[in-house]
Amino acid sequence: MPSLEDVRRAAAGLQGRIHRTPMLGSTALDEIFGGRLTLKAELFQKTGSFKVRGLLHKTLQLTPEERERGVITVSAGNAAGALAWAARDAGVPATVVMAKTAVPAKIDAARAYGAQVELVEGDLIAAYESIRDERKLTGVHPFDDLDVITGHGSLGLELLADSPDIDTVLVPVGGGGLISGVALAVKLLKPTIRVIGIEPETADVVSRSLEAGSAQKLPTAKSVADGLAAPVCGTHNFAIIQQYVDQVVRVSEAALIEATRLVMSRTKLALEPAAAAPFAALLEGKIELHGLTAAVVSGGNLDVAKLNL
Amino acid sequence: MPSLEDVRRAAAGLQGRIHRTPMLGSTALDEIFGGRLTLKAELFQKTGSFKVRGLLHKTLQLTPEERERGVITVSAGNAAGALAWAARDAGVPATVVMAKTAVPAKIDAARAYGAQVELVEGDLIAAYESIRDERKLTGVHPFDDLDVITGHGSLGLELLADSPDIDTVLVPVGGGGLISGVALAVKLLKPTIRVIGIEPETADVVSRSLEAGSAQKLPTAKSVADGLAAPVCGTHNFAIIQQYVDQVVRVSEAALIEATRLVMSRTKLALEPAAAAPFAALLEGKIELHGLTAAVVSGGNLDVAKLNL
Repeated sequence: MPSLEDVRRAAAGLQGRIHRTPMLGSTALDEIFGGRLTLKAELFQKTGSFKVRGLLHKTLQLTPEERERGVITVSAGNAAGALAWAARDAGVPATVVMAKTAVPAKIDAARAYGAQVELVEGDLIAAYESIRDERKLTGVHPFDDLDVITGHGSLGLELLADSPDIDTVLVPVGGGGLISGVALAVKLLKPTIRVIGIEPETADVVSRSLEAGSAQKLPTAKSVADGLAAPVCGTHNFAIIQQYVDQVVRVSEAALIEATRLVMSRTKLALEPAAAAPFAALLEGKIELHGLTAAVVSGGNLDVAKLNL
Repeated sequence: MPSLEDVRRAAAGLQGRIHRTPMLGSTALDEIFGGRLTLKAELFQKTGSFKVRGLLHKTLQLTPEERERGVITVSAGNAAGALAWAARDAGVPATVVMAKTAVPAKIDAARAYGAQVELVEGDLIAAYESIRDERKLTGVHPFDDLDVITGHGSLGLELLADSPDIDTVLVPVGGGGLISGVALAVKLLKPTIRVIGIEPETADVVSRSLEAGSAQKLPTAKSVADGLAAPVCGTHNFAIIQQYVDQVVRVSEAALIEATRLVMSRTKLALEPAAAAPFAALLEGKIELHGLTAAVVSGGNLDVAKLNL
């Protein structure tokens, strides 16, 4: 398991290459939810989400030979752009395997960051493995990877550096990438802190994994919070979550939609539904607030075509 | 006409009561538009728009007797909430005359800030005048008022305090309230600066006024940028615009919609269409960029019900 020193080294390597995103208060949200909240505005991160933290750190750990040959990942879209950006930033060629049916804007984003995009019909994983082996590329898992987790931990360090008084951290949960990194960092720094994950009822693989005692897979996972619709809980992520996360709660699709609109209208942040998960849990009364609570506003890759003007 | 000293006094009176909104850069927008842009993120202002600057300053100028009796305005919605907020902040009772058909969320906002809302069928102005005279309230025009203009000037001071190198300022234009205050302040401080207004083709009362040489009225004005759909150019505003604004350009509805989506997707700011007007003009090639250009992102009171998730 990564150490606090590993996370600190990762954060030092990322410094100056990614944004140090601000912590924002909102008196309106404090009044609505009856507590003291501070928002980690990670939607302002490079590529619009936290994902570049782990993926850039991963890319920076490669050997010179691996760097030269390049990296490859398989993605429904979100990780594709982030890996493409990270690889370009690190000067490493990137290949991304995506479904032919992926959202065109996400394919374009990966290409715009210079990745070679391989569009595939049928079995994505088989295509990914075959291209990886054929071209001797280094496969990068978007979340089930200790370097990726360590990179995401940098966000946890920033939380406590900016607000040492934080009592609780609320983190949106998909496959467990972000929360495993954040929980590791903040619990090693401040063991009394409470870490709560929030995931959609309709994509609750981490809750099910905790209930089963091992990392699970779902046949399908769909949510309005597309960034959280991972059908798999990573095994590295699971081990860390089991040890360091206090609780994972489920939220309804209706609450995710209401929370996205509420937070956008009150804070003027163009957050994506995944990032609204902490507020969905507060709306549904799933979390009790005491002390200072940090909510990670994890990304802003909203499909703006859905804005009917 | 207000002096620079008047604007400075207004800014000093507002300090600590309203937000000093940040200037934000966006490398993505710089690349798209081929220039150097800095965004005045006024959507983070109290009540979500610049309007509180002028309306709070106005309210703070009242005599003790006027304060006790209270203020009144008539509004389709946007100024209602801002005056209600300003009056509450200044400890002055506020009455707002609104149409029965006004957007319910805007009626609720005015009430939530403690204003007495009078819902009227038929002639709004007649109802406003009758209530004002009967109750001996002080009428506040949402933009055609020298104190309101002076208060809006505080935004211009902040622009040049934060970025003295600004060469051009782009300001969304409705009835002329914001641009008259900003132009006055920045031109008195830095006469070489260029000030350009942007208004919808379908609500172009300020362009028409400049062409006619006097403040005009339109029979109707409608735009997707509802914050800019004023059918009247204020006479005080017109005099200042004629003297200090270099140019006012018109933009299409399609460009306003495209610009709103583009800026939201690239900056993660939940701006309203009115605030996207400067970028609509850049999309349509109506403005040439040279040097450092500040765009005033004037508000974020987007109707979030229009976000189809």
